Amino acid sequence: MSYRDLVSRLTLEEKASLCSGLNFWQTKPIERLGIPSLCMTDGPHGVRLQRQGGSFTDSEPATCFPTAAALASSWDPALVERIGQALGDECRALGVHVLLGPGANIKRSPLCGRNFEYFSEDPLLSSEMAAAHIRGVQSRGVGSSLKHFAANNQEYRRMTTSAEVDERTLREIYLASFEGAVKGGRPWTVMCAYNRLNGTYCSEHPWLLTQVLRREWGFDGVVVSDWGAVNDRVQGLAAGLDLEMPGGPYAQDAEIVQAVRDGRLDEAVLDAAVERLLALIDRAYRPQGDSADLDAHHRLARQAAAESMVLLKNDGAVLPIAPGRRVAVIGAFAVSPRYQGGGSSHVNPARLDEPLAEMRRAFGDQLVLYAPGYALDDDAPRLELIEEAVRAAAQADVAAIFAGLPESWESEGYDRPHMRMPDAHVALIEAVTSAQPRTVVVLSNGAPVEMPWIHRVPAVIEAYLAGQAFGGAIADVLSGAVNPSGKLAETFPLRLEHNPSHPYFPGEGDRSEYREGVFVGYRYYDTKEMDVLFPFGHGLSYTTFEYEAIRMSREQVRDDDVLTVQVDVRNTGQRAGKEVVQVYVEPRSSRVVRPRRELRAFAKVALAPGETRTVEFQLGKRAFAYYDVDAGDFAVESGWYEIRVGSSSRDLRLTASVEVTSAAPRRPVSVHANAALGDLLDDPATGPVLRELLKEKLADSPLGSEMDANPMFEAFMRFTPIGRVTTLFGVPRDENERVLAKLRAAQEEGQPEEGRG
Amino acid sequence: MSYRDLVSRLTLEEKASLCSGLNFWQTKPIERLGIPSLCMTDGPHGVRLQRQGGSFTDSEPATCFPTAAALASSWDPALVERIGQALGDECRALGVHVLLGPGANIKRSPLCGRNFEYFSEDPLLSSEMAAAHIRGVQSRGVGSSLKHFAANNQEYRRMTTSAEVDERTLREIYLASFEGAVKGGRPWTVMCAYNRLNGTYCSEHPWLLTQVLRREWGFDGVVVSDWGAVNDRVQGLAAGLDLEMPGGPYAQDAEIVQAVRDGRLDEAVLDAAVERLLALIDRAYRPQGDSADLDAHHRLARQAAAESMVLLKNDGAVLPIAPGRRVAVIGAFAVSPRYQGGGSSHVNPARLDEPLAEMRRAFGDQLVLYAPGYALDDDAPRLELIEEAVRAAAQADVAAIFAGLPESWESEGYDRPHMRMPDAHVALIEAVTSAQPRTVVVLSNGAPVEMPWIHRVPAVIEAYLAGQAFGGAIADVLSGAVNPSGKLAETFPLRLEHNPSHPYFPGEGDRSEYREGVFVGYRYYDTKEMDVLFPFGHGLSYTTFEYEAIRMSREQVRDDDVLTVQVDVRNTGQRAGKEVVQVYVEPRSSRVVRPRRELRAFAKVALAPGETRTVEFQLGKRAFAYYDVDAGDFAVESGWYEIRVGSSSRDLRLTASVEVTSAAPRRPVSVHANAALGDLLDDPATGPVLRELLKEKLADSPLGSEMDANPMFEAFMRFTPIGRVTTLFGVPRDENERVLAKLRAAQEEGQPEEGRG
Repeated sequence: MSYRDLVSRLTLEEKASLCSGLNFWQTKPIERLGIPSLCMTDGPHGVRLQRQGGSFTDSEPATCFPTAAALASSWDPALVERIGQALGDECRALGVHVLLGPGANIKRSPLCGRNFEYFSEDPLLSSEMAAAHIRGVQSRGVGSSLKHFAANNQEYRRMTTSAEVDERTLREIYLASFEGAVKGGRPWTVMCAYNRLNGTYCSEHPWLLTQVLRREWGFDGVVVSDWGAVNDRVQGLAAGLDLEMPGGPYAQDAEIVQAVRDGRLDEAVLDAAVERLLALIDRAYRPQGDSADLDAHHRLARQAAAESMVLLKNDGAVLPIAPGRRVAVIGAFAVSPRYQGGGSSHVNPARLDEPLAEMRRAFGDQLVLYAPGYALDDDAPRLELIEEAVRAAAQADVAAIFAGLPESWESEGYDRPHMRMPDAHVALIEAVTSAQPRTVVVLSNGAPVEMPWIHRVPAVIEAYLAGQAFGGAIADVLSGAVNPSGKLAETFPLRLEHNPSHPYFPGEGDRSEYREGVFVGYRYYDTKEMDVLFPFGHGLSYTTFEYEAIRMSREQVRDDDVLTVQVDVRNTGQRAGKEVVQVYVEPRSSRVVRPRRELRAFAKVALAPGETRTVEFQLGKRAFAYYDVDAGDFAVESGWYEIRVGSSSRDLRLTASVEVTSAAPRRPVSVHANAALGDLLDDPATGPVLRELLKEKLADSPLGSEMDANPMFEAFMRFTPIGRVTTLFGVPRDENERVLAKLRAAQEEGQPEEGRG
Repeated sequence: MSYRDLVSRLTLEEKASLCSGLNFWQTKPIERLGIPSLCMTDGPHGVRLQRQGGSFTDSEPATCFPTAAALASSWDPALVERIGQALGDECRALGVHVLLGPGANIKRSPLCGRNFEYFSEDPLLSSEMAAAHIRGVQSRGVGSSLKHFAANNQEYRRMTTSAEVDERTLREIYLASFEGAVKGGRPWTVMCAYNRLNGTYCSEHPWLLTQVLRREWGFDGVVVSDWGAVNDRVQGLAAGLDLEMPGGPYAQDAEIVQAVRDGRLDEAVLDAAVERLLALIDRAYRPQGDSADLDAHHRLARQAAAESMVLLKNDGAVLPIAPGRRVAVIGAFAVSPRYQGGGSSHVNPARLDEPLAEMRRAFGDQLVLYAPGYALDDDAPRLELIEEAVRAAAQADVAAIFAGLPESWESEGYDRPHMRMPDAHVALIEAVTSAQPRTVVVLSNGAPVEMPWIHRVPAVIEAYLAGQAFGGAIADVLSGAVNPSGKLAETFPLRLEHNPSHPYFPGEGDRSEYREGVFVGYRYYDTKEMDVLFPFGHGLSYTTFEYEAIRMSREQVRDDDVLTVQVDVRNTGQRAGKEVVQVYVEPRSSRVVRPRRELRAFAKVALAPGETRTVEFQLGKRAFAYYDVDAGDFAVESGWYEIRVGSSSRDLRLTASVEVTSAAPRRPVSVHANAALGDLLDDPATGPVLRELLKEKLADSPLGSEMDANPMFEAFMRFTPIGRVTTLFGVPRDENERVLAKLRAAQEEGQPEEGRG
């Protein structure tokens, strides 16, 4: 039976009842028609199936994979897809039908409390990762819920604030991240965000939920509210919000019924939502019973964590630590690791590595010393702990300090007030490095921190919140069992104030103005030529790579062609390793305010020592485009573009130039009294006519000699509206009208037939 | 006879005729009523009375005083007022009745072609200078025309572009500069700008020309169009634009007549404009005949130029150059000085110093060598000229390089495309400093340049465009006859890209978005904690100053009080000198996005060696205020503020703290379903009631234990709208309605009588 037929057998009340949950996590069943209940649960990097009647943190054990912030640093969609598959398997084992994730929100500010759940400051990288996650989960017959749609980039006043974002910025940055995920992942559900977007709650935003998501991007699934995001239920349904969550006795099904009865809501709108809900139930429902291999998943979590770690710095090849060296493991995080963030994504881990134990396993019990260095629950330095750590470091050949951000500093629900590490961690690093120059700092944190100590430390690994197998993974990387290949998915600024959203983040009252526009992350730092601590895309390896021989399929393309770019990458070191090859496109010039460069393609390649591989990229229209709000579409300016290939946004190794021609017809100049003379002169239709008229005029007027005498005069003139030549240049008004008429005629003449009228 | 009576004797056509000029520079006389014609002419730093039938640059000789960019660096309103007096005298001598200046536009970008005609990036400094200029000119019975009102901050597409600026930014920055000039200078005329402001031409902007300028600021003079700025004449008149310029046969008087006849324009509006025009004619008209002392004015121009020069750097006390030293004067600008900019402000100087001749006079003919170093008309380095300069430098004890920006790079009518100096100047500086480490660079330019060579040069003087007596003044400063006391009225960024308007300047097509808002100049660099080349307010002296003993009249004030701040400043060096004492105010915290610090007062004091003076400042409400758009007025947040006194925005010597209490009543929280629980808890009326209700609720609900178990929960809750506690926290909807009613009642109760209803 089709969903449409099934809908016709439901009463109005039954249809409305399907539009909200049975309780906090389940949809409503309708037993007389055999419609089962779906179970939804958090979250992106692990299944948080809350126990019946239990508290928020009391959930079924599940694998805690690396958080999105970590996974994005792998730049490896295939890896993320495998994790999605594992998550899907665990959902099936636990009877979960829809997993609430991944999150594709863009990291606008490093302070956002939920950044650890998001992938990147770049929409291409973010959307590729989100799409891979969705494909993985859904390959197991479990639904994804792509969230939080859209512009939910802060926790501060998240349920009332309005993100004030211009459309071009939405299209190129904040929506682009979702667009790629929807088109590349085809999620069964999308979760609308809590916040308002340009004044309207995302839960009742027709442009967002229907025009963009469904009509433009072709999304055919269910839109579910973030939990508690529904404001006006009837407006929400009309806008495209199908399912109110949580449900229960106080959900607003009766409002829907009443609105249909009153004629305020077309019943067809309700029917369409119910059809989509029934289709989802049909897709996603299956009885519980499968099992998941949690040991295999732990191994996958370890591999993913290691592949995601970013070697930020490695002066003097302090890393990897050779066997036989004495290692001082310092920092309470080595025993009580930071591996996930707070809030709805908090997983009760099925297994949990202790980093210290894994370090002992890797380097030998006798060779590993330990000192906690700081107290977990105290941000202030403790002298006795620091002194103990300094003694341990002095006794060892190498010190590995486990530091970062305390658990309570990073959570859904609130943002960080600053970007600093605890004083206790900073003081520890400073003291230890004074005693032991061969020190590596291992950072566990969900988002960038300031590193006032960076010049004292030869080696730093950014591990992010790396999941339950962080301990094993860091031992793998420190020992060299795994060669690190992670790259930053976000810029580390020198200080918070440099971030483009500062000081407008998190806004005033319930208004958060995105004044930086498209200049998010490296788009800002690179355009503003600002020094950064570590650039976007940065990450070192224990081996070295060379980039050679960039080739393009053509040097001139139309924007509806696809340009193929090839480069050769060679492992010039002694170890096998992986490189993330990044392709940035730079417009040589533009009439539009555009970022200096934008990531348009990337690939991760594994190379044995001495091995060379050719990496190929396809660049289509979007690689050169900006969003043209007037045209309502992405558009390419005809002109030259540089294709720059490298290892970070600031480490560009090869460059090629391509001339791209827009296939769109040129827009003619608008002829009216306020059209600038320069614009009329530049237009191919009106230009020759106006030039001829000016030549006649100037021949016998003082204007002509003025222009000869004073070349600045031409600049003045170009910006003068043609209507103002009357008083300024002594042109009679009726003569000016005749000139305008001639220009309009020239334009009619010059236009192709189909463009007329 | 009153103007009103005179108006009643004019025909409609006569009245309309008065609303445009007779020709390019004069107003229309009406002989039958004895109404004379006024003569208006450019410009801010000298009288440009164009000769009849002559070209743009063919004007009567007049004193070319230092441009506004230079004068502002004096930070000395009394000096500017004296120059205004001299300008007024020259106007009288030439029969000019209204002088078109000063310009009070804010320097948003260093690229604006007309920056040399404007004072500062700071509205307080800009408005104090503009007001002093106006007072000086008008003290001689000559009218000023404060221009270009408003937000005319670029030349690019200046006659069509729309400055898109939020109201708070206008009020605090762009309009504030005019507000202070209008209130402190009481100009007889204001000139409206070419551009549009938020979509509406400034020449027909009722809010700008009538609401703000006349009603709020009390301006009682004439608004004149910038030359050719009139778009729709009738709308312009209705908006408050009195006089269309230039006039002549193609002005739109007939449009006015027709509009009155059609009933589209109330004749009273025309009458009011004509009354103002007649009042201006009455104030300003006088027959020609006075004479001006051009020699005295040249001496004043020399003094002003010297007082305005900014000693940016003076490592190793290279300056002043002691008598008897051999000086290599290098650079063609030493013979053909750069001392003014292009466009309407271009003066035909009555006298003109040659810097080289003045250097010979100061140091002795035998001791001064000269090499041109570069060609005036060529930006490319010329090897032979550089080699000659290097030889001269090597033969001397000190080299003084005259460099900067070529004349054609800085003009009304177009903006600079970059912030660099010509390659020829940079190459010269690099070559000369290699041969002669004791090198001073003297810069002649209207706006900041990048200085990639700064680390090679021990001494730099920023002379700006210093007027016709630049030559004598620079000799005075280099020789130590004058101790430099100028301070930068604008920040010199390290590179153009760091400027806050970049990359949004000069906008896309006819839209220029002021996305940086109030963060203009040092307000941006200081808030963003960015390194700069030279900060706002910076300038060295040949002596040293110490700041001692900050005192305040009180440590707690209401915002309607005036706070008195005193500091002692001591000359701790061996020479007499002048210091500019700057007072910045910093809010300790704010719910509003505010600049880190803002200049709120300044004073220039002359001190003999060893002398101490007490400098006193008055800080009123505006020193602590921001513009509250909702309230439609400047407002002060109650709280602590730091008063910081120092020698630049980055060289703050003394700090005191004051607690300011707003006299405005606290705005009560708005009680509705989307009010956040945290806001309701924080409000003194609703907070206690809600806290009590929550306590009851939480006692026997799982919510209570959740909050105990998970402190993050409180943060979640504070941002939750009270209407969402239904599905989220299991509160029945009708109970929630009862709570809202109780909160509303508590609020009614808690409000003062006059606040009710």
